[in-house]
Amino acid sequence: MGKKIVIIGGVAGGATAAARLRRLDESSEIVMFERGEYISFANCGLPYYIGGAIEQRDKLLVQTVEGMSKRFHLDIRNQTEILSINKEAKTVFAKHRLTGTEYEESYDVLILSPGAKPIVPPFPGVNEKNVFTLRNIPDTDRIKSYVEEHKPNHATVVGGGFIGLEMAENLADRGMQVTVIEKGNQVMAPVDPEMAAYVHQELRDKGIELILEDGIQSIEDEGKTVVLESQHRITTSMIILSIGVQPENTLAVDADLEVGKRGGIVVNDFMQTSDPSIYAVGDAVEVKDYITKSPTMVPLAWPANRQGRIAANHIYGKKEGYNGTLGTSIVKVFDYTVATTGLNEKRLKMLDVPYNIVHIHPGSHAGYYPGAAPMAMKVLFQKEDGKILGAQIIAKDGADKRIDVIATAIKGGLTVEELTDLELAYAPPYSSAKDPVNMLGYVASNIINEDLETLQWHEIQAAVEQGDFVVDVRNPKELEQGYIVGAKNIPLDELRDRLNELPKDRTITVYCQAGLRGYLATRILTHNGFTARNLDGGWKTYSITKQSSAHALS
Amino acid sequence: MGKKIVIIGGVAGGATAAARLRRLDESSEIVMFERGEYISFANCGLPYYIGGAIEQRDKLLVQTVEGMSKRFHLDIRNQTEILSINKEAKTVFAKHRLTGTEYEESYDVLILSPGAKPIVPPFPGVNEKNVFTLRNIPDTDRIKSYVEEHKPNHATVVGGGFIGLEMAENLADRGMQVTVIEKGNQVMAPVDPEMAAYVHQELRDKGIELILEDGIQSIEDEGKTVVLESQHRITTSMIILSIGVQPENTLAVDADLEVGKRGGIVVNDFMQTSDPSIYAVGDAVEVKDYITKSPTMVPLAWPANRQGRIAANHIYGKKEGYNGTLGTSIVKVFDYTVATTGLNEKRLKMLDVPYNIVHIHPGSHAGYYPGAAPMAMKVLFQKEDGKILGAQIIAKDGADKRIDVIATAIKGGLTVEELTDLELAYAPPYSSAKDPVNMLGYVASNIINEDLETLQWHEIQAAVEQGDFVVDVRNPKELEQGYIVGAKNIPLDELRDRLNELPKDRTITVYCQAGLRGYLATRILTHNGFTARNLDGGWKTYSITKQSSAHALS
Repeated sequence: MGKKIVIIGGVAGGATAAARLRRLDESSEIVMFERGEYISFANCGLPYYIGGAIEQRDKLLVQTVEGMSKRFHLDIRNQTEILSINKEAKTVFAKHRLTGTEYEESYDVLILSPGAKPIVPPFPGVNEKNVFTLRNIPDTDRIKSYVEEHKPNHATVVGGGFIGLEMAENLADRGMQVTVIEKGNQVMAPVDPEMAAYVHQELRDKGIELILEDGIQSIEDEGKTVVLESQHRITTSMIILSIGVQPENTLAVDADLEVGKRGGIVVNDFMQTSDPSIYAVGDAVEVKDYITKSPTMVPLAWPANRQGRIAANHIYGKKEGYNGTLGTSIVKVFDYTVATTGLNEKRLKMLDVPYNIVHIHPGSHAGYYPGAAPMAMKVLFQKEDGKILGAQIIAKDGADKRIDVIATAIKGGLTVEELTDLELAYAPPYSSAKDPVNMLGYVASNIINEDLETLQWHEIQAAVEQGDFVVDVRNPKELEQGYIVGAKNIPLDELRDRLNELPKDRTITVYCQAGLRGYLATRILTHNGFTARNLDGGWKTYSITKQSSAHALS
Repeated sequence: MGKKIVIIGGVAGGATAAARLRRLDESSEIVMFERGEYISFANCGLPYYIGGAIEQRDKLLVQTVEGMSKRFHLDIRNQTEILSINKEAKTVFAKHRLTGTEYEESYDVLILSPGAKPIVPPFPGVNEKNVFTLRNIPDTDRIKSYVEEHKPNHATVVGGGFIGLEMAENLADRGMQVTVIEKGNQVMAPVDPEMAAYVHQELRDKGIELILEDGIQSIEDEGKTVVLESQHRITTSMIILSIGVQPENTLAVDADLEVGKRGGIVVNDFMQTSDPSIYAVGDAVEVKDYITKSPTMVPLAWPANRQGRIAANHIYGKKEGYNGTLGTSIVKVFDYTVATTGLNEKRLKMLDVPYNIVHIHPGSHAGYYPGAAPMAMKVLFQKEDGKILGAQIIAKDGADKRIDVIATAIKGGLTVEELTDLELAYAPPYSSAKDPVNMLGYVASNIINEDLETLQWHEIQAAVEQGDFVVDVRNPKELEQGYIVGAKNIPLDELRDRLNELPKDRTITVYCQAGLRGYLATRILTHNGFTARNLDGGWKTYSITKQSSAHALS
């Protein structure tokens, strides 16, 4: 007979491990416990079912207990909670949630896939009936039926992360007024502030009230009033808490398995916990960051599935390790796609990793073919070796493709300069002869080769104060949308003839709309003996941050 | 003073080189000759201007002579043909096409970017006024004004490559009946026949008459009748010849520069011809295939632009070589996108490179989120080292993204197994928790690890004749769309209970709809002592080839 393998948690990593285990061995006994009613449901689809984009509830149920049991010859026990693990005896203690029946189940190998749960601070009013979190199908049913019964006209979403923004969009799609409260100074923590500024703008353009740098203090009036830390009061009909998640580590802690500082279950490359007979996968584990190898916790679907497979493989002697999590993520925010991979500036600073930055604003495909959308792209890299550290892209079209290309380049060990050599598919409906990813590579190469010195959107003011001479090389008509006060306007095509208007003894800071003409201008200036640098990302990157803060609630 | 650089050809590679040269040096003298009126136009957009998707002719003119001259300080001489090159004297002999003025121009460095011209066989009637080729703006103007003046109701497109299919679609979009004639047994030579079958089906679904394995013999009745080699006669109003292109190598041959077997100008990694003072770039040069390093000619935009830059860099001492052409390409065919990278089976066979194959049919994103499109994906790889040799994708959505990811993986040196470890961006509107590219990697890994033996769509008949027992593991309802005659139907979920219905002494060939359930079935069978293999790509890949040939004109 084969092994007896017990899995705790039947969603994502747990379900993947079960299916893989069966493919590796027909003779093993596989018992999968799931606390809830449903296994392997579409977590990532829940907001869209609430919003109505996904119309049938059935579609959320990727695998049913019956179907998966049959196909993979599994003993699936849903509605069953594991209360404790006895490492020495190699048993788990189970309780059926409906019948109350309790029993012990033995294992040769145990896989923990408990997931993460929403953080719910214990503020006054948190237990009102119109306060929700969203993690599973019952949560979804509760929100959906509340919405359908009470026809709320206003929702308050607390937390501007993935789920918060997806819920804001989906509730707005149902005709509700939505207020998003975010404690930080920006939504979407995985992107840096000048990129989040596009999201802020889009939220406001779509009628979402966005309140930054404020948090929930209490809920009053039977859930009809949200009181913020600033004492600002919001009249609302329902509240979604999407502040963040924390690992479901109780079983692991009680069993004395090693957990990390932030509570993630510690595992080795093969997903084994400190007890080699116990594996752990998914949102509850602490993994290595792919780029820096530092510990991190990334509650996303891809890592969970990958880890489930790696654990199953290792149980059958396949020594393929988990390479760490890059953290590639994506979210739809109304008409925009926000995509990231690797590390952002905030995290690089925290880890004390030096980096350089490039912002560009190419079209998603050839400008002469209809439907091209402007993209805001950012790449972070190391100047000395060209190592790509991370990328962020926001656009109405083409962001998902380019982030995947960059994530692939990182896994392939390509340098930022080698992005220029990617031979990507071009026809006018899809890209440009130089793809936006090639362009990122070219601009970064210019910085590495010292053909180009840049400064960032937040460095302009200091540069002016230090005596830089600022030149706007756009055409006069473009200045109508705004300009940097004190800049001299010399259109690029006149620059060669008007060099005598520039001071030789001051650094010339050049900017244009998106950065390309500014670069050409710095080349002309440098060749003519000036010290010149270009505003990275041009007016587009600079101005979005101004618009964003101008709208912010003070 | 700087160098004097002369460029012959002001489109794509030539224009890129000129702009790059100026960024590298403000003091050089750059003379760019262009035979036509226009420089740097949007070649790839021409069919879409004829079809009307691109409405304004202006949009095709990416750079004007005046604009580019001013911005990059270039001496651009359009309407000027170079009649000869004197390598020894380092001069070119020029003739203005309108004034007839002839003169010599000297150079320190010469860059040839002459491009490729349409192949026009000398058949009777080829010079009729309604016979067109499409290469440049004047060709486009001629076709567009013919269409607008004569309101033709039928067009014959000769050649089913990129331009032929784009023209077929665009002329159909203008309301014309279109017949496509293709000499080979499939359109779109870069993809293999079972993938081209989707294109055949789409063309026919969209009302295009497709005639394969036939060629044009003559044009009669003042252009109103096309006579094929089969003697089939087509009544038509206009004819587009898109048979293929050949390098414009006359200047190079006359100057005794080395050319390859198929006429491409031979260059080294830095794009230098056999005369080190003369560079050549773009459609006219012979390059190395990126994967096999064998000589090839790939008339596409990305290589031309890349080569233009590399030539310019080398002129200024930067020793970054051209790494060869992967041949990533893409074309929109009505609702489908057809995308390829690397080599196809035909080419691998010709080069005698051994390969393995995987076909899969995943959704373009999570099936529970609306709008997911089925994709047909194929990857070719080497079993011994996992090297990725090529990929082909056809789908209504998501093909461009996945081909770019695979093209990037190839450039990053990733093996087909490492495609499983790509951490791609997932949210329901964009992908699945396991991206289709991950899935390709998983199936290929199964073959490499010998967890899975497969056979191909064209091998079924021989397998049956050799005595294989064929099992269809789909559900009975799925058989309504067709099945392999003689196959026994045992739904996957019943297989474990019905093993006694299968012969132990015969190879069991299993198939399902797309390949996944067939794989699961082979695992069950193998674990139970059977010899089993799976029809790669399942019924979907198998049946498309039948439908395609069933419709073919015999």
